[in-house]
Amino acid sequence: MSASMATPWKQLLLHALQTNSLLKHSSFFQLATIGADGKPSNRTVVFRGFLEETDKIQINTDLRSHKIKDIKHWPFAEICWYFTDSWEQFRINGFIDIIDGSNSDPLKLQQREKAWFASSLNSRLQYLGPDPGLPSITEDLPKDHRVDPLAGPVNSFCLLVLDPDEVDYLNLKTNMRAGYRCSSLNGVKLWSTEKINP
Amino acid sequence: MSASMATPWKQLLLHALQTNSLLKHSSFFQLATIGADGKPSNRTVVFRGFLEETDKIQINTDLRSHKIKDIKHWPFAEICWYFTDSWEQFRINGFIDIIDGSNSDPLKLQQREKAWFASSLNSRLQYLGPDPGLPSITEDLPKDHRVDPLAGPVNSFCLLVLDPDEVDYLNLKTNMRAGYRCSSLNGVKLWSTEKINP
Repeated sequence: MSASMATPWKQLLLHALQTNSLLKHSSFFQLATIGADGKPSNRTVVFRGFLEETDKIQINTDLRSHKIKDIKHWPFAEICWYFTDSWEQFRINGFIDIIDGSNSDPLKLQQREKAWFASSLNSRLQYLGPDPGLPSITEDLPKDHRVDPLAGPVNSFCLLVLDPDEVDYLNLKTNMRAGYRCSSLNGVKLWSTEKINP
Repeated sequence: MSASMATPWKQLLLHALQTNSLLKHSSFFQLATIGADGKPSNRTVVFRGFLEETDKIQINTDLRSHKIKDIKHWPFAEICWYFTDSWEQFRINGFIDIIDGSNSDPLKLQQREKAWFASSLNSRLQYLGPDPGLPSITEDLPKDHRVDPLAGPVNSFCLLVLDPDEVDYLNLKTNMRAGYRCSSLNGVKLWSTEKINP
């Protein structure tokens, strides 16, 4: 076992993203949370980059979506990210922070705004649609919604930030598997690495 | 909302499997469970077909793997299955049954044996390897393991059977989303369908 202040799995992940970059779906992963009914939930979401220079993972979502209720109830999640070209899997477990427009931290509100402007106009348009997950009322279809490219985030836009504390890496081509575990030393994240059986 | 004794989402799933059949990874999905520590777990597994003529989903796994501990502790799971070619997502929630060699039901033991013989010799070989998820001891690498093609399942081979009771279908090309929910009527599964907002 070895320990390091760098984030050893982040390099592997950046490399996998590069290797698989020709596939649109390489930025998609599955996010598992736990519902208030105690049952697991699992859905595909889009990777929106790391938060600044950290190892925290950004996801955009609708504040009205079911996953927000899950995370408010129990703020832990596991990402499963399988790269179909390089046959690599990253399982990333951590705490999730919900950043919506009511957040009291100006820095977080800035991060949310940055995430809003970084997403396409088409992506932004989705947040103007009807309540996701609710029964669809055909008479009430969204019509003529437009997004002003200069306008800031709408109320339903929400940034999720997952702060990893455990990562499991598996390479199905080389049959290599490694576990990464985070501990905190004087507020600094320290990662330990261990080779484990696939 | 409409109700039916047939399994409406199974036809959609069979169609998606056919449409995406050229992609090896179309039979892979992510299985979310909950660990004994209360945190969600999420990993890629392989679809091993429906159990006989039912809508139950079969997965092979190693009895020594961490997910078995999760499921023994809390037998609920959600599959997230994203088809990268047709842009369809199936979220399948249900109860999971663990069928290992110690099962007392002769019918279930037969199903486990069938699953063993349906998997390739290479797949079977994996169950002879060291304890998955444990630290890897390089000195103790599996060597010269061979599988007798006629021999029945080894102790570590385990069949998981997920019995769906809720399915969420999303088609990103047509933007169509539907929810399927199961209730039981005199022991017969009854599925209701509802169009929901994407």
